[in-house]
Order: sequence, then C-alpha cells, then structure tokens
Amino acid sequence: DQNPLPSTIDARLRAQLEFVVEVDRLKTILRQSPLAAVDRRENDAEHSWHLALMVVLLAEHSDEPIDVGHTVKLVLVHDLVEIYAGDTPLYSDATDQQEREEAAADRLFGLLPDDQAVALRALWDEFEARSTPEARFAKAMDRLQPLLLNWMARGGTWKSPGVTADVVRARKAVIGEASSSLWAAGQELIDEGERRGWSAPGR
Amino acid sequence: DQNPLPSTIDARLRAQLEFVVEVDRLKTILRQSPLAAVDRRENDAEHSWHLALMVVLLAEHSDEPIDVGHTVKLVLVHDLVEIYAGDTPLYSDATDQQEREEAAADRLFGLLPDDQAVALRALWDEFEARSTPEARFAKAMDRLQPLLLNWMARGGTWKSPGVTADVVRARKAVIGEASSSLWAAGQELIDEGERRGWSAPGR
Ligand SMILES: [Ca+2]
Repeated sequence: DQNPLPSTIDARLRAQLEFVVEVDRLKTILRQSPLAAVDRRENDAEHSWHLALMVVLLAEHSDEPIDVGHTVKLVLVHDLVEIYAGDTPLYSDATDQQEREEAAADRLFGLLPDDQAVALRALWDEFEARSTPEARFAKAMDRLQPLLLNWMARGGTWKSPGVTADVVRARKAVIGEASSSLWAAGQELIDEGERRGWSAPGR
Repeated sequence: DQNPLPSTIDARLRAQLEFVVEVDRLKTILRQSPLAAVDRRENDAEHSWHLALMVVLLAEHSDEPIDVGHTVKLVLVHDLVEIYAGDTPLYSDATDQQEREEAAADRLFGLLPDDQAVALRALWDEFEARSTPEARFAKAMDRLQPLLLNWMARGGTWKSPGVTADVVRARKAVIGEASSSLWAAGQELIDEGERRGWSAPGR
C-alpha cells in the first residue's frame, strides 16, 4: 500500500477501511458485456451494483421464498475474487478458474479481521455452491443481467466465435433453477435474438 | 427506447426489465471523486456498489442498531435520480438540485409498476430525510467513501478552489450523526491531510 491510513485509527477499523480501499480495484476489472447506455465494456463493480438492484426489483419472481437482504450480500461480494483472479468470460474454456479464485479469496478476505474474513468467504462459497434459494437467485441475476445487455446490444457476446443460440441456452438455463418466470422471459430474448440473427442459429 | 423487449413478456415483468435496462445509465454519470485504483473519475454505479459493501462491512460501527439489508437498499437507490438530474458535486452551490431531483424521481420511478414506484420513491425519500438510523448510516457511507478516495489521491477534490480543511469538516460532520467511531476516523484523515498540505489549511 503506497499510502497507508494513519496508524492512530483503531486497528480493527483500519483493517476494514484498508479493505474498502483495496476493493476499489473491482472498478478496474472489465467484463465482456457491453453497456446498454454507452459503447464500452462493463466493469465488475458496475455489474455487482446492477445485480443488487435487480435482486430488490425482481425478488418476487423467485420460485422459492428468499431473504432479499442476504441475496443482495451474495451479489455484492460474488465477483470480489476477480480483483486478483481476473474475469473469466462465460463463453470460455478456462480450466484453472477455480484454483485461481480460491487463492484470490484467501488473499483478499485475509485482509479483513478474522470474523469478517470468514463471513465474506462463506458468502462467496454459498454463491458458488448454489445450495440455497438465495444463492440460486443471485446466480440467476448474474446470468440474466448480461442477457439483457446483449439484447440491448443486438447480440453483444452472443456473436463470439463458436457461440450459437443453443450454447447461450445451455449457459443461461441456470436461471430456471431460481425462477421459472424469469427463465421464460430469458428464453423469449434468446429465441427472438436467434430469429433476428443476433446469435448463430441453433446447435 | 430504440430496442424494446419482446411484447410476449408479461407486462409487469417487462416494465421491471425495462427499468433494469434504463438504470444502466447510472454507469455513465461521473462523480468528482478520483478512483483509488486507477486515474479516472468514479461513476455513480461503482460508487453505489462501494457504499453497499461498506454498509455490510462497517455496520457494527453504527451508534444505533440498524437493519443492514434495508440500509443496503437505501444506498443502492440513493443516486438513481442522477440519471436524469446529473451529479451535484458536494462542494458546489447549486440551488435547484432538489427541484431537478424530484422531477427525475417522478420520471424514473414512474417506469416501474405502481407498487414498486412507491417503494423506491420511499427509499429515496428516507435517504434524503435522514430520519431513520438506516438513512443516517447510509448518508455516512456516502460521505465517508469519497473521503477515503480523496485520502488515497492525496487530496483529490479537497484541492477544489475555495475548499479548506474546515469546509471539508463541515460537509463531512454528518458522518457523526450515524457513528462516533467512523467520524473520529474521518477526522483523523482530514486532520492528517491538512497537516500534509492535501487540503488548504483551516478556515
Ligand atoms: Ca450523490
């Protein structure tokens, strides 16, 4: 750290504030998705905010009851490990993603006081495992949001080499684990995008 | 809207998803604050994400008990009106800010189904009024976060014309309405910044 906080600040609070400064880097991690509002790629901090607001707005569509506040926490922290591990595009074949992200989690959450390191790690593990209704809904937001951005871009990353409408369907089907109505809407977008030639047809 | 969602999607959900697309514009509203991680200005979506994570991490410092999930909702929506009203810098003398933001709130929240328009407007009003412990803590995050960014930038907007350390103290004192420990830390940063010449001295 090139500019440490004054050591007169209580050690626990100082560690928390230094973590707050460190995670500023999430704003520099670029995703593949194009923004709807302007012609540039989205970063992870913007993406995480967008998911959090979507949880608040769309929670009624969860097939199972969810704790909205807890679901929001899951999306706020879900991409933090990418500060050190980088973004892994959805339509990629990376095999070392898990290993890189586990190491990043140890390093990043280790900056926090122990109790909070454990708590944030547990949120990230829960999101990754999708073993709770909240984690399934959080993951659904993570897949639905770029689908909307790709729709607005008339294709976006659907136009990546090797991606067809069926590949998109396979990668997005996880939305259906959380919400049948949102997955129905997602399929409308994918189907109509395919009809308009925004993704390569079928298989 | 140049690219409407398919009309086959249920009307309520379609309105919600169109709102989700519209608020993508928050990512284009630039603030005065410099990022800590890289040399550019922050946008409102990044800022809102940062505040939300700060609520989760720093809630223990609230002088009054707060509902963390509700406080997170307040910060997620607190800047949405700036999509139409623009950012009003903290160290500015704008007099029409409230009028512009009220009009923006009517227009933006009016895109949602009525019940959600009312709910989001209530969150924004609560944040602005600071009449609940949650709103006071949310506002404290909104003032503490750029203070940290200015510290990392060795001055940042503290170096704006007409701004002195006492002006900074006056604008940041609202942190003390929510948390005596965070305001003590904030004052350490302002005092030490003044000593280092990162803000104009005193009065
Ligand atoms: Ca603002």
